[in-house]
Amino acid sequence: MLHGCSVLTWTHAKKLSSTLGKEKVITDPNIVAIYAREPVGLEGRPLAVVFPETVEDVRRLVRYAYKNSIPIYPQGSSTSLSGSSVPEKGGIVLSMERMNRIKEISLVDSVVVVEPGVRLGELNTVLAGKGYMFPVDPASQAVATVGGAVNSGAGGMRGAKYGTMRDWVNSLSVVLPDEHGTLARIGCRTVKCRQGYDLTRLIVGSEGTLAIVVESILRIAPLPEAASVVLAFFDEPEGPFNALAALKERAIQPLIAEYMDARTVEWASRDLELGYEARGHMLVMAVDTSHEAIPRMEKILVDTVRSAGASRIYTASSLEEAEEKDLFRVRRNLFPAQSRSARELLGKPDVQVLIEDIVVPPSRLLDAVRGIRRLEEKYGFPTFLGGHIGDGNLHPSVGYDPSDESMTRLVHEWFKDVMKLALSLGGSISAEHGIGLLKKEGLRMEFQHLGSTKPLELMEQIKRAFDPKGILNPGKIV
Amino acid sequence: MLHGCSVLTWTHAKKLSSTLGKEKVITDPNIVAIYAREPVGLEGRPLAVVFPETVEDVRRLVRYAYKNSIPIYPQGSSTSLSGSSVPEKGGIVLSMERMNRIKEISLVDSVVVVEPGVRLGELNTVLAGKGYMFPVDPASQAVATVGGAVNSGAGGMRGAKYGTMRDWVNSLSVVLPDEHGTLARIGCRTVKCRQGYDLTRLIVGSEGTLAIVVESILRIAPLPEAASVVLAFFDEPEGPFNALAALKERAIQPLIAEYMDARTVEWASRDLELGYEARGHMLVMAVDTSHEAIPRMEKILVDTVRSAGASRIYTASSLEEAEEKDLFRVRRNLFPAQSRSARELLGKPDVQVLIEDIVVPPSRLLDAVRGIRRLEEKYGFPTFLGGHIGDGNLHPSVGYDPSDESMTRLVHEWFKDVMKLALSLGGSISAEHGIGLLKKEGLRMEFQHLGSTKPLELMEQIKRAFDPKGILNPGKIV
Repeated sequence: MLHGCSVLTWTHAKKLSSTLGKEKVITDPNIVAIYAREPVGLEGRPLAVVFPETVEDVRRLVRYAYKNSIPIYPQGSSTSLSGSSVPEKGGIVLSMERMNRIKEISLVDSVVVVEPGVRLGELNTVLAGKGYMFPVDPASQAVATVGGAVNSGAGGMRGAKYGTMRDWVNSLSVVLPDEHGTLARIGCRTVKCRQGYDLTRLIVGSEGTLAIVVESILRIAPLPEAASVVLAFFDEPEGPFNALAALKERAIQPLIAEYMDARTVEWASRDLELGYEARGHMLVMAVDTSHEAIPRMEKILVDTVRSAGASRIYTASSLEEAEEKDLFRVRRNLFPAQSRSARELLGKPDVQVLIEDIVVPPSRLLDAVRGIRRLEEKYGFPTFLGGHIGDGNLHPSVGYDPSDESMTRLVHEWFKDVMKLALSLGGSISAEHGIGLLKKEGLRMEFQHLGSTKPLELMEQIKRAFDPKGILNPGKIV
Repeated sequence: MLHGCSVLTWTHAKKLSSTLGKEKVITDPNIVAIYAREPVGLEGRPLAVVFPETVEDVRRLVRYAYKNSIPIYPQGSSTSLSGSSVPEKGGIVLSMERMNRIKEISLVDSVVVVEPGVRLGELNTVLAGKGYMFPVDPASQAVATVGGAVNSGAGGMRGAKYGTMRDWVNSLSVVLPDEHGTLARIGCRTVKCRQGYDLTRLIVGSEGTLAIVVESILRIAPLPEAASVVLAFFDEPEGPFNALAALKERAIQPLIAEYMDARTVEWASRDLELGYEARGHMLVMAVDTSHEAIPRMEKILVDTVRSAGASRIYTASSLEEAEEKDLFRVRRNLFPAQSRSARELLGKPDVQVLIEDIVVPPSRLLDAVRGIRRLEEKYGFPTFLGGHIGDGNLHPSVGYDPSDESMTRLVHEWFKDVMKLALSLGGSISAEHGIGLLKKEGLRMEFQHLGSTKPLELMEQIKRAFDPKGILNPGKIV
């Protein structure tokens, strides 16, 4: 039990029901259970799920929870891979799914104004019709919500070129966990904004521990006019990294640079019907350009991968054509294949896949891949390995049986060793999945490695300033 | 005198001299005076300027200052326009000009590792030789330093497309104002980085009030391959804004969109020898594209400005050609012309130019321009008006005689009215110049306008967490 927090009792649930309306407060254990679990297998035991429909609903809930010291767990679509919104300590899950309006789209101002429950995929469908996009594209974007992406500081495939969530949030409206449920607006509608300390970016990536996001003004960008795509397979492990390096030395920053090593390609392409030969270390890159420059860019891409030793090379003159030719299919099959392989190897229907999320400087990627293979030998788990290498982000994953305690323990040791590997190569323990519950120890390791854990103390003080009673997503990050 | 801070005495200066080496501690009043003044006309009376050469020098100074409660004012090249590093309360100016090494450039990792005294212009000269750039380009970039740009969260002409400093800093090494002079590293070498709360961006734009930046890992980008440029003059005031809006509705985000109204064009083009007719409301836009697409893009730009009513249109097929044709010359002459005009109007050699720095949603720019002209009528100062309108940033400026108290008071009332105008249009009181001393009241006005001043209280608590004795750049922001 969190210091200072009390359990939510049935009396509380009843009072909340009468304050907010009973259709907004769900206590049916079967429904509550659905909201209590994350894809990493962690789950909590909240007493209720609250579905606010207005900012005022959120404020009323916060005032009640503050007064009664009840934990609140803000939740988007619960696709976190770090346990960042598991309701560990009981309390209330705050689902933002009913606050899901796109309130405004302004092309002149390059912004959208959205409620937290809007899904990224839905937003991008609407924007695409106008020639625009919201560039942050986590793998879960079909279901991931804006609020979840803000809280998790999400990244994705286009991170090397477009950065992450922190670069695309102009302003937030938040409810603060104080006695008034204070509604504050921080940041500006415009990109340029000097408003003292940058509280907006302090909340982006804070995993719902500092404030409850009730509205976001997001920056948007034009869709790339055209893109040239190459899929290449290399016999030598350094091939994909040398190709990426060569492209960047020509001052070209790929929009997408996705990697898989040969062992993983073999696993992930099994039983797929593909119009190409998927064998070797894989690199698929897309470079955005103008329509007129496509032939030249395609030649540059082909020359680059060939000079780096690629033996099987496939191209497309647009992202659409790349989809038609299935050029991203093997990459996308990574985690489904990992899951299936674990089920088959373990002979069990219920397996858990643990996906790591490290980042290393792109110049150290080959060392990282070798290190991950050494860890595979050490632990003996089949390790699947893919990543967004334009920004050095690798996602090694292993499947295991969560009911097998010794296996689970070993898998978590492996997880820690992968983080240590990243730190030893000048990288970081988390690129985009966050700290949540799974990487709190890793975060401490990281600051120890960097020479001082004082930043953790500062984070604790920041947490206390925003959330003096510690009711907001307690136990996460700090 | 700041609560808790003591004056720097000669004894302190002598002790510092013996600790750091006398060549690093300057107390000669003539030299000190140079470091005590900012372009806005504000100045302080520090007792010494310290020039550290190593991180260890900075730490030693901080330990001494902490123990003796002496204010420290970190300083780059002192080009701030908000009084953000004026040594108001005596103490020590900490000049980072001797820590000026570019320590590493990695194209594969898309980063540079630099000391704070490196000048942005110098960095860009080195990077341009490799086809890269650091995209943040404040007008002062020839002299502005990396450390100053980090602390001020600088913007510039390319802000609409590339954002500001916060989007281009991956990691910082900082010395914290505590008893140990703790050296901490925050952020990652890579763009993707989930490290708990984002302390990196908390320090970016904090105006030297939270920590002393001693090293930065900055993200770099390829130089645009090619750009098409158009300079257009309109008879109707809405012309430039309609042209910008039309371009964005075509899903084209200009690299540069610089504006001046007709009255300002008249002033700023006087006595310039130009190869074109500078008359009317001015818009100069550049769009980056590929070499092959230049003719098409030029046609789009010309059609767009013509449809918006431009009557005088001039183009260039590259940024270099635009420079040869002087297409940016009138825009660049804004502040020199303002200064000269004030000298002539007031008949004095020593005038001061006060440059405002508001931002409004681009859709409200015409209203902002009209509002600024109404304020000109109210106050009777000739107001020069230019701005980076791609991101809604306007810089109205007035010249005045700082020795004339009533004029100075009036100018500051005008300054406040301009901020109120921005807030009334859904904008913000500062786009890129920051809060410093000049906009502390404005910052409070802004949060009052947004509905809650609680964010200011949170900022005060953050300040106390980082700087418990309040020795770092006291009196700024909070």
